Amino acid sequence: MTAEYRLILLRHGESEWNAKNLFTGWVDVNLNAKGEAEAVRGGELLREQDLLPDVVHTSVLRRAIRTANLSLEAADRHWIPVRRSWRLNERHYGALQGKDKAATLAEFGEEQFMLWRRSYDVPPPPLAKDDQYSQFEDPRYAGLPTELRPQTECLKDVVDRMLPYWYDAIVPDLRTGNTVLVAAHGNSLRALVKHLDGISDADIAALNIPTGIPLLYTLDADLRPTKTGGEYLDPEAAAASIEAVKNQGKK
Amino acid sequence: MTAEYRLILLRHGESEWNAKNLFTGWVDVNLNAKGEAEAVRGGELLREQDLLPDVVHTSVLRRAIRTANLSLEAADRHWIPVRRSWRLNERHYGALQGKDKAATLAEFGEEQFMLWRRSYDVPPPPLAKDDQYSQFEDPRYAGLPTELRPQTECLKDVVDRMLPYWYDAIVPDLRTGNTVLVAAHGNSLRALVKHLDGISDADIAALNIPTGIPLLYTLDADLRPTKTGGEYLDPEAAAASIEAVKNQGKK
Repeated sequence: MTAEYRLILLRHGESEWNAKNLFTGWVDVNLNAKGEAEAVRGGELLREQDLLPDVVHTSVLRRAIRTANLSLEAADRHWIPVRRSWRLNERHYGALQGKDKAATLAEFGEEQFMLWRRSYDVPPPPLAKDDQYSQFEDPRYAGLPTELRPQTECLKDVVDRMLPYWYDAIVPDLRTGNTVLVAAHGNSLRALVKHLDGISDADIAALNIPTGIPLLYTLDADLRPTKTGGEYLDPEAAAASIEAVKNQGKK
Repeated sequence: MTAEYRLILLRHGESEWNAKNLFTGWVDVNLNAKGEAEAVRGGELLREQDLLPDVVHTSVLRRAIRTANLSLEAADRHWIPVRRSWRLNERHYGALQGKDKAATLAEFGEEQFMLWRRSYDVPPPPLAKDDQYSQFEDPRYAGLPTELRPQTECLKDVVDRMLPYWYDAIVPDLRTGNTVLVAAHGNSLRALVKHLDGISDADIAALNIPTGIPLLYTLDADLRPTKTGGEYLDPEAAAASIEAVKNQGKK
């Protein structure tokens, strides 16, 4: 059997807090004007390359939802079925949510800072339920049992809560023969790519996914990528963005 | 049993073709800036009056989808589940789609013109499948058997194709205890209101639903309105809009 499935991953564009250099996590900030333009450009790439989604999956966060809406409007696919899940949310950043990244680095030092940002299994300290950036009273999570509502997460936690949605919601849409768009976040998409490409717990630290550039995975009948790492619809822009993040790391 | 269900109807705001005075029907035109502002205002009314939808149903037309997106973003309910159906589409306007209303009135005379616009069971002439404004090749209807794809519709046709969606998709969401938002069109909403309020085939001609003002129906356990006609969330604006349409009719 030579079935091939088409999965398109799209990380939301720049948000108001990216631009302010604050940890965001589950805080529901909006896209800024640059992020809106990235989303539209993402949709134009889908249309130009005739990669038209039949169904879209998003997180329940505004920046991913608006990225999906704007890109689908640009691709003339605004009318396709929509599914949403908190399981596609960004990593919950615990007590760091709402904190300035530079101030956090200065306060805790580079080693601790990088452990929280890039280690696979060390979560930041939990966010207090009464913190102003807690989502504990948020109506969109009201139906979730308490034990499912994170107060902090490491990437391993994201993999664990994201994978059930992959198997139970996204895979059936792929099996139906649909081209599936997943509009989500840096870390929920890294979690998915880790799974798809079989990246080790150690190596995932080095993987960055650029914002706003659709990433196409063609999957075989066993849902394994026919090409490791997939293909960005604008490879030059993706390479430049990944390079810029690397150099950021070096300072 | 005193169960009460909350159904909110929202007609999309002004579109590019409303402003140009063209018959639109199933042609997928966008909102204009005034229509976008109406949608945002509709969402603000929902938020101010604490009428927060748990689920939204839209047509598959851009002007209703964007109205839903913009109003839900304004109400901070962008994250709720979304369902869409062609059964909520505007009435298909047949061969009149894309035609100027004033020119059509001049060509066919007032009697024929008003028969097409307001009679319950006289559809306009069918639109040719190869007409530039035909939706026959539109991918969003590709899964529909030919006999379901209209080439013209009267309001009775809209009632007939809308009601199955009311019973099979919207009613179950109401029964689950959800507050349900339906973002749709002048005629698909008139069809629904005709059903809810038990309006006769003759009397429905006089009913107009203003754009962008949420209309709340509270329904009893048998899904009958507790108040005929429902309640507009901005009654003054609704009354002014309905009056303006009446005077338009008088010229």
